[in-house]
Amino acid sequence: MKRPLLITLALILGFTTTQAQQDSLMLRKIYDEALVNGQSYQNLRYLCKNIGGRLSGSANAQKAVEWGKKLMEGYGFDKVFLQEVMVPHWERGAKEVGYIINGSKKIPVKLCALGMAVATPPQGITASVIEVHSLAELATLGEKAIKGKIVFFNRPFDPRFIQTLAAYGTAGDQRRAGPSAAAKYGAVGVIVRSLTESNDDYPHTGATLYTDDAPKIPAAALSVKAANQLSALLKSHPVKFYFKQNCRQLPDALSYNVIGEMTGSEHPNRFITFGGHLDSWDLAEGAHDDGTGVIQGLEALRVLKATGYRPKNSLRAVFFMNEENGDRGGLKYAELGDKNKEEHIAAIESDLGGFTPRGFSFDGPSTVQMQSINHNWKKLLEPYDADKLIVGGSGSDIEPLRKYYPKAALIGFLPDSQRYFDVHHTPNDVFENVNKRELELGAAAIASLVYLIDMRGI
Amino acid sequence: MKRPLLITLALILGFTTTQAQQDSLMLRKIYDEALVNGQSYQNLRYLCKNIGGRLSGSANAQKAVEWGKKLMEGYGFDKVFLQEVMVPHWERGAKEVGYIINGSKKIPVKLCALGMAVATPPQGITASVIEVHSLAELATLGEKAIKGKIVFFNRPFDPRFIQTLAAYGTAGDQRRAGPSAAAKYGAVGVIVRSLTESNDDYPHTGATLYTDDAPKIPAAALSVKAANQLSALLKSHPVKFYFKQNCRQLPDALSYNVIGEMTGSEHPNRFITFGGHLDSWDLAEGAHDDGTGVIQGLEALRVLKATGYRPKNSLRAVFFMNEENGDRGGLKYAELGDKNKEEHIAAIESDLGGFTPRGFSFDGPSTVQMQSINHNWKKLLEPYDADKLIVGGSGSDIEPLRKYYPKAALIGFLPDSQRYFDVHHTPNDVFENVNKRELELGAAAIASLVYLIDMRGI
Repeated sequence: MKRPLLITLALILGFTTTQAQQDSLMLRKIYDEALVNGQSYQNLRYLCKNIGGRLSGSANAQKAVEWGKKLMEGYGFDKVFLQEVMVPHWERGAKEVGYIINGSKKIPVKLCALGMAVATPPQGITASVIEVHSLAELATLGEKAIKGKIVFFNRPFDPRFIQTLAAYGTAGDQRRAGPSAAAKYGAVGVIVRSLTESNDDYPHTGATLYTDDAPKIPAAALSVKAANQLSALLKSHPVKFYFKQNCRQLPDALSYNVIGEMTGSEHPNRFITFGGHLDSWDLAEGAHDDGTGVIQGLEALRVLKATGYRPKNSLRAVFFMNEENGDRGGLKYAELGDKNKEEHIAAIESDLGGFTPRGFSFDGPSTVQMQSINHNWKKLLEPYDADKLIVGGSGSDIEPLRKYYPKAALIGFLPDSQRYFDVHHTPNDVFENVNKRELELGAAAIASLVYLIDMRGI
Repeated sequence: MKRPLLITLALILGFTTTQAQQDSLMLRKIYDEALVNGQSYQNLRYLCKNIGGRLSGSANAQKAVEWGKKLMEGYGFDKVFLQEVMVPHWERGAKEVGYIINGSKKIPVKLCALGMAVATPPQGITASVIEVHSLAELATLGEKAIKGKIVFFNRPFDPRFIQTLAAYGTAGDQRRAGPSAAAKYGAVGVIVRSLTESNDDYPHTGATLYTDDAPKIPAAALSVKAANQLSALLKSHPVKFYFKQNCRQLPDALSYNVIGEMTGSEHPNRFITFGGHLDSWDLAEGAHDDGTGVIQGLEALRVLKATGYRPKNSLRAVFFMNEENGDRGGLKYAELGDKNKEEHIAAIESDLGGFTPRGFSFDGPSTVQMQSINHNWKKLLEPYDADKLIVGGSGSDIEPLRKYYPKAALIGFLPDSQRYFDVHHTPNDVFENVNKRELELGAAAIASLVYLIDMRGI
C-alpha cells in the first residue's frame, strides 16, 4: 500500500505544483498588462473630467452610460448591453447657504444638503441649536429639549479604528437615521458633522433615510471645521443656526446598468461579475467613489482579454447604476439574473476607493472555505501585496445576489482605507487624488482573482 | 516522563499566551496614543513649513538641528544630546536654465542640477545631444560618438516592478554613475531622465557620484515630460541642448546628529536605535524624504514614554544628518557607538516615505531568525496591517552599524511604495502630500516593533 500512496501523492503534488506555476505565470501576465499597457488611468480621467459628477437620473449619468457602453464596444467584448432600471431622481438645486448666528454676528459655514433630503422653506430655517452625540442621547433629551430646534449631531469619527470604514460604520447612524429620529421629537432641522476624521472644510454629503413615521425635515452636513467651531461656541452660550437648501425629489427616471461580457467557453450561463457603481454624488467628479471601481472592473476584463485568456465561465464587468441613493441597479441585476435563469457563482465589488490594494474580503463563507482560499491563493497574491484575504462584507451592488444565489461568493476588493474619508462624498473627490499605479494595481488584483475563480473554482 | 513533559508544555504555553496577551494590549495602547494624541502631524508641519528644505551645511539644516533638540528636550526624555559631524556643503546657487535647441527654436524645459554636481561655465553649455539608455550602451558607442556631446540618459522606470524601490534601484545607475562614465568618453555634460514613473514636469534631483578617473562634468535631471519631448524630437533629427547651472562645493561644515534617549532600566548600555535623516534636498520641504522618518522616530519614543513604558534597554530616537549627500551622520553614529563601547542590538530606519505601513524589512538574519520573527510578531502586527515581515535592506543611516555590530538586527520600515517616487527629490515633496493617519500609523508600527525587540529580544 505504501508505494501506490506515495506515487499518488507525487502525482497530486506534481499536478498542484504545475497549477501553481501556471497561475503564477498568469498573474504576472495580468500585472504586466495592467502596469505596462494600462488604460484605467486615461479612462478614469475621461469619466472625471469630460463627464464629471453623475448622480442617478441626471443628464451626466446618462452621458456616463452612453460613454461606458461605447468604451466597452470598442474593446470588442463578446457582448455589451444595457439593463433598464428606474432610479430615484434627486437634485440638489442651488448651492446651500448656512451660518452660525452668534449674538449679532453671522458666521458663514461650509455645508451641503444630505442626499435625498428635503428643501428648507425658501427663506431658510433659523432656530436654536442643540448638540447631541448619539441617537441614544437624543432619546434621553426627548421632545421637551428638542422641539422647535435644529439638532446638531456631532459625534466624531473614532480615530482608534485601524480600518476607517469601521469608524464610518459607527458614526454613520447620525447621517442615515438622525434626521428622522430628531423629527420625531419635533426638531425643525438637522445638521450633521461630516463623516471623516480629516480636519478640513469640506462638507461630506451622502444619503439620509427618512422613515415614514416622522415628518421629513431638512438635513445638511457641516464640514468638520464648521462643526468644531459651532461646538466650541455652544460650550459657552446658546447660539442659533440658519440654513437654506433647495433640493427636490423628481419622478423616478429611466437609467441603466452597463455590462460588458466575455462569454464562457465551458459554462456560458455561469457568471463571475465584477465592477462598481457608475453613479456618483454631485459635488465633484466621483473619482474614488466610484469612478475607480467601474474603471477597475472594466480594466480587469480588458486585461484578461488582452492576455489571450479564454474563460471557462462568463465574465462580466458591470457598471451598476444608483448605488448612492437607492441601490436600484444592484437590485435589478440580481432580479434579472434570477429571471433569466443565470447561474452566478461569484461577484467582486470595488467601492472603497482606488487606493493601493491590500486584498479581498469574502462575505460569509465558512471557516473551512476561508482556509482553502488562503491556502490556495494567498501565496500567489503575496508578491503583489494583495494577499489580505479575510471574512467580511462585499458591497451594496452585489449584495442583492445573495437572495437568489445563496452559495455565490460575494467579495469586496480591499484597498488601503486610510485616505478614503478625506475625499468620500466631498468636493475633493477628483481625478487628481487618484494615483495611477494604485489604480492599476487594483485592476490587476481584481483580474487575478477573477482568473483564479474562473480557472480553479471557489 | 510523560506527565512532566505535558506539565512543562502547559507551563510554556500558558506563559506564551500571557506574553502574547500582554504584547497585544501594549500594541493597542501604542496605537491609541499615536492615533488619539498623536503629535507627529503637527511636528512635521513645523519642520516643513517653518524650516523647510535643509540640505547639509545650510542655515536651514542648523535651524532643524536646534529645533529638533529643543523639541526632544520638551518631551522630557532621559537624555537629549548632539553628536558633532563634519558634512559636505554643496549649494545649488541660482535656479538652473535649460532648453532644447530645435533648429532655430528654443524649447524651455524643467531641469535641476544633480546633487554634488559641478556648475557649467557662466555662459552655460551648448552641445549636440546623444540619447543612451544604459551605461553598457554608452560603452558600446565609445569616445567617437560621445566626445563633445551632452549625453542624455533616458532609460525609464520599469513599471512592472510592484515595489517602486526596485525600479529606482535598476534605473538609478544613470544618475549615480552616468556623469563620470560619460566624462570618460569626452562628454561635456550629462542630462538624466528623472527617476520616477510619474509623467509630470518635476525634475528629480539626487546625488551623483563623480569618480576620480574622469573630469567632473555638469549633470542635471530632466523632468519626465521634458525627457519624453527631447527623445521624440531626437527620433526624427539631431537636436542640441543648452543648460546652465550654478552649483558649488563649499568647505565641509560642522553639523550634528540629534539624539533623544530613554535609558534602559536593565541594560543602560544596550541600545535600540530608530529614526531617519534630518537633512533633505533643497527643492522643497523634505516632507516624505525624510521629514516623516525623523518625526516617526521621535513620535515612537514619545508614544512609548506616554504609555508609561519603562524600557529594559536604552531606546534612542535619532535624527541623522547628511544621508542625502554623504551619509556622514550615520557613519559617525556607528563610529561613536564603537568608540564609546556601546552595545547596539537593533536599529530601525524610516526612509521610504510616510505612507501607509506594510511592515518591516530585516537585513541579513538567517531564515531561522526570520521564521521566529514571523512566528512571534506577525499575528500581533496583523490587526494593524503592518505584518509584512521580510528579509531585505534596512537604510543608509543605520547600515554603518553593521561594521561594528555584526549581530545587530538592522531593520527598514516598509511603507507602501506606490506614491514615493511621485514626490521623491522634487519640488513636490511638501507637507500637503503627507496623510495624517498614514504618518501616525507608521510611528505606531515603529514604536510597536521597538517595544517587541526591547521586551522579547531579537
